[in-house]
Amino acid sequence: MTRHNTRDIYPATGTEMTCKSWLTEAALRMLMNNLHPDVAENPHELVVYGGIGRAARTWEDFDRICAALRDLEADETLLVQSGKPVGIFRTHADAPRVLIANSNLVPHWATWAHFHELDRKGLMMYGQMTAGSWIYIGTQGIVQGTYETFAEAGRQHYGGSLRGRWILTAGLGGMGGAQPLAAVMAGACCLAVECDETRADFRIRTRYCDAKAHTLDEALALIEGWTKAGEAKSVALIGNAAEVFPEIYRRMQAGEALPNGRPDIVTDQTSAHDPLNGYLPKGWSVAEWQAKRESEPAAVERAARASMRDHVAAMVGFWNAGVPTLDYGNNIRQVAKEEGLETAFAFPGFVPAYIRPLFCRGIGPFRWAALSGDPEDIYKTDAAMKKLFPENAHLHNWLDMARERIAFQGLPARICWIGLGDRHRAGLMLNEMVRSGELKAPVVIGRDHLDSGSVASPNRETEAMKDGSDAVSDWPLLNAMLNVAGGATWVSLHHGGGVGMGFSQHSGVVIVADGTDEAARRLERVLWNDPATGVMRHADAGYDSARDCAVAHGLRLPGIL
Amino acid sequence: MTRHNTRDIYPATGTEMTCKSWLTEAALRMLMNNLHPDVAENPHELVVYGGIGRAARTWEDFDRICAALRDLEADETLLVQSGKPVGIFRTHADAPRVLIANSNLVPHWATWAHFHELDRKGLMMYGQMTAGSWIYIGTQGIVQGTYETFAEAGRQHYGGSLRGRWILTAGLGGMGGAQPLAAVMAGACCLAVECDETRADFRIRTRYCDAKAHTLDEALALIEGWTKAGEAKSVALIGNAAEVFPEIYRRMQAGEALPNGRPDIVTDQTSAHDPLNGYLPKGWSVAEWQAKRESEPAAVERAARASMRDHVAAMVGFWNAGVPTLDYGNNIRQVAKEEGLETAFAFPGFVPAYIRPLFCRGIGPFRWAALSGDPEDIYKTDAAMKKLFPENAHLHNWLDMARERIAFQGLPARICWIGLGDRHRAGLMLNEMVRSGELKAPVVIGRDHLDSGSVASPNRETEAMKDGSDAVSDWPLLNAMLNVAGGATWVSLHHGGGVGMGFSQHSGVVIVADGTDEAARRLERVLWNDPATGVMRHADAGYDSARDCAVAHGLRLPGIL
Ligand SMILES: NC(=O)c1ccc[n+]([C@@H]2O[C@H](COP(=O)([O-])OP(=O)(O)OC[C@H]3O[C@@H](n4cnc5c(N)ncnc54)[C@H](O)[C@@H]3O)[C@@H](O)[C@H]2O)c1
Ligand SMILES: NC(=O)c1ccc[n+]([C@@H]2O[C@H](COP(=O)([O-])OP(=O)(O)OC[C@H]3O[C@@H](n4cnc5c(N)ncnc54)[C@H](O)[C@@H]3O)[C@@H](O)[C@H]2O)c1
Repeated sequence: MTRHNTRDIYPATGTEMTCKSWLTEAALRMLMNNLHPDVAENPHELVVYGGIGRAARTWEDFDRICAALRDLEADETLLVQSGKPVGIFRTHADAPRVLIANSNLVPHWATWAHFHELDRKGLMMYGQMTAGSWIYIGTQGIVQGTYETFAEAGRQHYGGSLRGRWILTAGLGGMGGAQPLAAVMAGACCLAVECDETRADFRIRTRYCDAKAHTLDEALALIEGWTKAGEAKSVALIGNAAEVFPEIYRRMQAGEALPNGRPDIVTDQTSAHDPLNGYLPKGWSVAEWQAKRESEPAAVERAARASMRDHVAAMVGFWNAGVPTLDYGNNIRQVAKEEGLETAFAFPGFVPAYIRPLFCRGIGPFRWAALSGDPEDIYKTDAAMKKLFPENAHLHNWLDMARERIAFQGLPARICWIGLGDRHRAGLMLNEMVRSGELKAPVVIGRDHLDSGSVASPNRETEAMKDGSDAVSDWPLLNAMLNVAGGATWVSLHHGGGVGMGFSQHSGVVIVADGTDEAARRLERVLWNDPATGVMRHADAGYDSARDCAVAHGLRLPGIL
Repeated sequence: MTRHNTRDIYPATGTEMTCKSWLTEAALRMLMNNLHPDVAENPHELVVYGGIGRAARTWEDFDRICAALRDLEADETLLVQSGKPVGIFRTHADAPRVLIANSNLVPHWATWAHFHELDRKGLMMYGQMTAGSWIYIGTQGIVQGTYETFAEAGRQHYGGSLRGRWILTAGLGGMGGAQPLAAVMAGACCLAVECDETRADFRIRTRYCDAKAHTLDEALALIEGWTKAGEAKSVALIGNAAEVFPEIYRRMQAGEALPNGRPDIVTDQTSAHDPLNGYLPKGWSVAEWQAKRESEPAAVERAARASMRDHVAAMVGFWNAGVPTLDYGNNIRQVAKEEGLETAFAFPGFVPAYIRPLFCRGIGPFRWAALSGDPEDIYKTDAAMKKLFPENAHLHNWLDMARERIAFQGLPARICWIGLGDRHRAGLMLNEMVRSGELKAPVVIGRDHLDSGSVASPNRETEAMKDGSDAVSDWPLLNAMLNVAGGATWVSLHHGGGVGMGFSQHSGVVIVADGTDEAARRLERVLWNDPATGVMRHADAGYDSARDCAVAHGLRLPGIL
């Protein structure tokens, strides 16, 4: 069982296929793209993002998946169980080519401890969300979500402008690395604490972060200058959030000098969902941490959990002092609560605070990637999307900023948050562009599992649902089965993404636009049905805007409407 | 929200459809059949079997499901969320007509307490296995499984003959009611403790049990006479297992008079998986129990759990004294263990003890029902099955005994345990019989969720797997998605069946043989793939017989073989 390997993986580009159809070629390229050196956080260990979110269980499994995809016929389906290819079965042309189930555990055993035991035995892999379902597109994927969240916070708390404001956060990993750029796009400054300097350097190299500091005073001086000047810029502070957050809180309470006297928004994106691998304990060096994960896992976990408690205690302090504070979906409040911090859930998660209204209309992180590998293909789709949605000024702004500020990683890709009624139109348009030859090669279309109808995660996406149905996971299972029935190209069911083992169940979907009539029929069904299940789920929970959306789009929801 | 209703539900029979195709007509008839007065344990409360296993969430939902099925087009799919119809979406002719997700909860919240909270709010329904997935066929469904288990125990412990032996058990509900008949078919006597006299009377009325007793001495006297005479007969003792089991154990230890000096096999099928609704506490009357479930649920649960501990303690006593003792899949050992009985898992579950070798070859509870409603249709299929499998003497015996001893309940149906390579042949044959007009109407084909590839349940079906992968639930999720992809008629994903909330995840599949070519193609795929996933799962776990079976059938299992 090999998890370490020094091979560099690059997906094929261009119009020559090594598989028997574009559907399987797409799966192969996207799997490889997830491990592209510019995309994955730690590709030699098969880690794509989010702690230990992997694309395949072992390198042997990676090779076997590639071989199976190259060989797969148009009426066959490959089954992948926690990153290992386990079977090839006969289905039909309109069925998915790949079905994936990652990290799923029977609830009573759904803990990190049991997962790690199975993982050590070679029986499991953590799939996160888009890592094990082969539709991660690098940090860009998270930029818009983060941007929308910060912008909405600005609207709710600062009259629509974040000029002269600063955001305190931590974690510059695969997802968290989007924060400085998203903050700047939203008009704010950002101080991001990151313990691993290589992560910070990666963000600076890819233009997601502007500056680096080694001391808190240095970082605060930069923020002071930028906020005064009304400039939106970001700094990575090399340090430990469990030390820096409490220190800033102390200074604020003590009335010591701080830009604006306090941070204007506080959040966090360390990998707190994974106490063994994702959170540096206070007082430890990164090297010590990495070594002890192997030799003393229990000690690492204990120390990390205790540090998270201190970290969250500071966040609760900011919240109580009136600073808009949000959990950004890493389950850190849950850990702090388990560590005895009764008030851990004082501040809200980002979904109920800012994102749910979008989910009610099926709006979420729609994305596509150009299998040609040619950035021009994406630029053409940018322009076409603007033409398709001429009235959507917000979308136009986003596409302009994205083109200007976001460096592609791996296969060129674009993300934009659109909802029911728009997604299938976008999909059909992309298919048309492939058919006409305007694009050089087919396009894959997918989304995050963090979406409207695809996830049950009571500490994050389904926190505080109106009817109390936060923990009901029938919905993502129905979503996955419906996407299989609709003819998506690959469909996945995962457990534990985002918030860790025990805390979420979710499904992913990817569909290929290869320019054929058959693809058009599938795209129309899948890209309608998929966001429609989100509207259905929120309508069932009693959200008026979801019911209105369902009525406006003529959804047939027998027990609901 | 109405759960009580005095309506009696009977499925339509004959060849006239009220739906637009046989696929949807089949779903409608089988839903109704689940609530047929001769089939369901408590149809007026929508309860089919297994504690509170329901076919629909409320009577309003039942009516809405029926209306939706009557209206459903050949390219549409109905979504059912915990017994409530929530959406109708466009798919295609080869996709399932119904997709069902019942009782699924995010692991950290997957407890009876949380389930009951949601259930009271009208947000959930317990689907058990075949109750909420509309393929329960009455007690017959369980007879063969129980028969196979007792017969195998006879082979392992008593040289192949149970003549003159007696089995001690409890619970004569929907599933447990099969025990006396299965014991008798296997050649043994049976003493079954049942607290609810109406349940015992029901079994006697339907010829599953031979006699009734009100005192232990009376029951033992009957057993004494039958075992002496070498007659295989059964008696229902009206009493509480938590009192009777310890008393028999006491007599055995004390050397007091007992047939054979001890029971020859001990097991149990009370609904221990559901401590609130399924197990009568010691010293309580049934009436008191029923009343207090509403008024003092916590007290009921506490008392039931304490009684189960005593019950299991007696079973451990029998086991330690050398009596073959088995958990029959109701999770009673788990409860006893939680109640502090350290030795609760001393005796094995029935799957690792007797059933797993069958699962390794994809063999499990295959079943079919005649939508015509005509018993002759089933008798014709009995004969045809014998002809199709001329070499399978075991199957022939079973079919003969079943015909003789099993009274049909609701739509006439037959079950027989067959595996990979045989199921699709049986399905194609049934389809041919429909096509040729030999059968009056189409046939539905399905199976229990307790099957080879469809369940993760570490205290039951996947107890003590060779590689320790008991809790990995990727497998049933892949099974469900593959059956959707293959074109089954309805597919379901459930949580908590058999062993209760938190302890299992499993999938169901039903497919209609309507005599068409399209059905034949789907049957061939689905009835091959479905057992093949079971062989795959057991081959992956390292069972040689599963690997041999996979090789023999030419399965393509890239990461496994
Ligand atoms: N809200 C969302 O939309 C969303 C989306 C995806 C992921 N997430 C969650 O956000 C978290 C981060 O995801 P990621 O992909 O960036 O993970 P990652 O593992 O790639 O990055 C985490 C980063 O945090 C740093 N870190 C760890 N402990 C630290 C500490 N004590 N102080 C400072 N820095 C520390 C690590 O060095 C690493 O760079 C995860 O929990 C993930 O589940 C949220
Ligand atoms: N092993 C298998 O193949 C298999 C299959 C299905 C179900 N089961 C499990 O078997 C159990 C029984 O299933 P069912 O459908 O018959 O359930 P059920 O609820 O219909 O029947 C349970 C019966 O037990 C009786 N009972 C309860 N407490 C009792 C006590 N203290 N003493 C005596 N009798 C008592 C009840 O009156 C009832 O008749 C469930 O836990 C179920 O999950 C096992």
